[in-house]
Amino acid sequence: MQSLKYLGMMFPLWLALAASAAPSIQSEPIQPIAKAVIRNPAMVELGKKLFFEPRLSKSGFISCNSCHNLSTGGSDNLSSSIGDHWQQGPIRSPSVLNSSLNVAQFWDGRAKSLQEQASGPIANPREMASNHVLALDVLRSIPAYVNEFDKVFGNRNVSMQQVTKAIAAFEETLVTPDSRFDLWLKGNKQALNAQELRGYQTFKTAGCVACHNGPAVGGNSFQKMGLVSPYQTSNPAQGRAGVTGKDADRMAFKVPSLRNVALRAPYFHDAGAPTLEAAVATMGKLQLGRAFNQQEIGDIVAFLHTLTGKQPRIVLPILPASSNDTPRPTPFN
Amino acid sequence: MQSLKYLGMMFPLWLALAASAAPSIQSEPIQPIAKAVIRNPAMVELGKKLFFEPRLSKSGFISCNSCHNLSTGGSDNLSSSIGDHWQQGPIRSPSVLNSSLNVAQFWDGRAKSLQEQASGPIANPREMASNHVLALDVLRSIPAYVNEFDKVFGNRNVSMQQVTKAIAAFEETLVTPDSRFDLWLKGNKQALNAQELRGYQTFKTAGCVACHNGPAVGGNSFQKMGLVSPYQTSNPAQGRAGVTGKDADRMAFKVPSLRNVALRAPYFHDAGAPTLEAAVATMGKLQLGRAFNQQEIGDIVAFLHTLTGKQPRIVLPILPASSNDTPRPTPFN
Repeated sequence: MQSLKYLGMMFPLWLALAASAAPSIQSEPIQPIAKAVIRNPAMVELGKKLFFEPRLSKSGFISCNSCHNLSTGGSDNLSSSIGDHWQQGPIRSPSVLNSSLNVAQFWDGRAKSLQEQASGPIANPREMASNHVLALDVLRSIPAYVNEFDKVFGNRNVSMQQVTKAIAAFEETLVTPDSRFDLWLKGNKQALNAQELRGYQTFKTAGCVACHNGPAVGGNSFQKMGLVSPYQTSNPAQGRAGVTGKDADRMAFKVPSLRNVALRAPYFHDAGAPTLEAAVATMGKLQLGRAFNQQEIGDIVAFLHTLTGKQPRIVLPILPASSNDTPRPTPFN
Repeated sequence: MQSLKYLGMMFPLWLALAASAAPSIQSEPIQPIAKAVIRNPAMVELGKKLFFEPRLSKSGFISCNSCHNLSTGGSDNLSSSIGDHWQQGPIRSPSVLNSSLNVAQFWDGRAKSLQEQASGPIANPREMASNHVLALDVLRSIPAYVNEFDKVFGNRNVSMQQVTKAIAAFEETLVTPDSRFDLWLKGNKQALNAQELRGYQTFKTAGCVACHNGPAVGGNSFQKMGLVSPYQTSNPAQGRAGVTGKDADRMAFKVPSLRNVALRAPYFHDAGAPTLEAAVATMGKLQLGRAFNQQEIGDIVAFLHTLTGKQPRIVLPILPASSNDTPRPTPFN
């Protein structure tokens, strides 16, 4: 999938696929999402606690779930996130759902793995505003956490590596299989109606699928935002260039997964598109040099709605109580 | 229970109870918490969604669960809560757990019912900072919500009365039965150890139980904070006087339930006691004119830990997606 870097290369292949008679999973550029395989339930359970743990923030108010809300598609669905002291974040928070399928984490891919990603926001002064020493002091002061880390990792150290490993293990379970589109891919031809199917055909023939492909319908490559004509935005983010240092990577962002995309307007890294319709129209113009008409937009949006899968069933964790030694949150200083 | 207004009246009764030989539920001033009876599951489910619904706030970031976090004892456990734009709240947020057992809601009892309480924070500019018109516009713009209100209430109006009724129905299920103390009350004499039992005896004989009694171990009366000697605090809250207008009610607050109290330091309306030990010592001095010694404090604290019950098992609700017509959150203006 890493090789699908330029639109032109893949166009003829998708056109050929679109023209084929009876689609099968093998011949489609999008594959079904696989169900989560939970290898270490104790680690996943610990990771879930940490994902919902507001005491990992300086304020005691912000947890991973604050901006990656599992009730609302794994994101806060704000134009930019709210950090410590209500600071405005630099970018729209990406969804944590199916994030294990991403080639890298963050919009600019600066974290290679979910584990690497997880340590960032805790210590980011504009996000959770704690630091790794304080976060570990908090966890180590709570006997039930120390016991649980011991059970999972075989020692009572409680390290940031363990914290992020457990959070990543939990996040790997946050996949959304069994969307209507996946049912269709697996052979249930009643799963999509005529408009949705037409939308999918347009999605392929127009070239959207050149970037939005694979099980996550995206997430597996970086692409320049504004390929045919430049993207106009007041958001200063420059994307991948900040990681690679290459001018050619300016405005290259990770292609977002379109799984569950109907759950989480607004769209783009700067939230520049308030609706799916606006997002499709802009993508057509800027990435494909194509002005979709109203029917095409409606059809593609109808198709995108079929990518909403089964949301993870999360039993809210009960977090262990602070001890008398637990450093207290300091939200107001 | 409303008649237990003054310590002196009830003292002899509790002393007599404490001196009795074989305690039974009937003779104890504390009764077990009853399990939740769910009469209208569809309404409870809708109420749960609304309890976790950040779009009821202006920012799209704050839900009921933000300050009444069901992962952490039904409260945020901060000295004072964080509202819209990170405003510092006036008071420590009370726990929502077992709040249906309270004589009234809020520290000053200004809401007679959970339903009345629920409408307050949504429109409070220092809390969720929305207003009832906007909150209803949001819900009415989301077809899945309108359908769910229709299913529960038999019409598609979506009124604030319906919203608060559903939230209250959910909150009524948030009880915490089967604490070790309740098991002991029900006859399992192994449920408490010697220190915990000693703590309970001291709790009764010293007079704590004069205010902290009933199934919720409190919550059923208003009492002056600083009965024997005045409570020193920089918090300007004057309690019940603001509701009744009576000078005699100055510094009278609702006696908090001690159920699950070990889960939610800091204590008092102003969070003036950082630990249970500090809270017990201060209460002894200010309310009972008594300086508990270290062993008494340790014993009472051990007893208080036995009041932690089974926390409600909450499957995180999946909230319906905003439509194109849904008013967007405005966190930064």
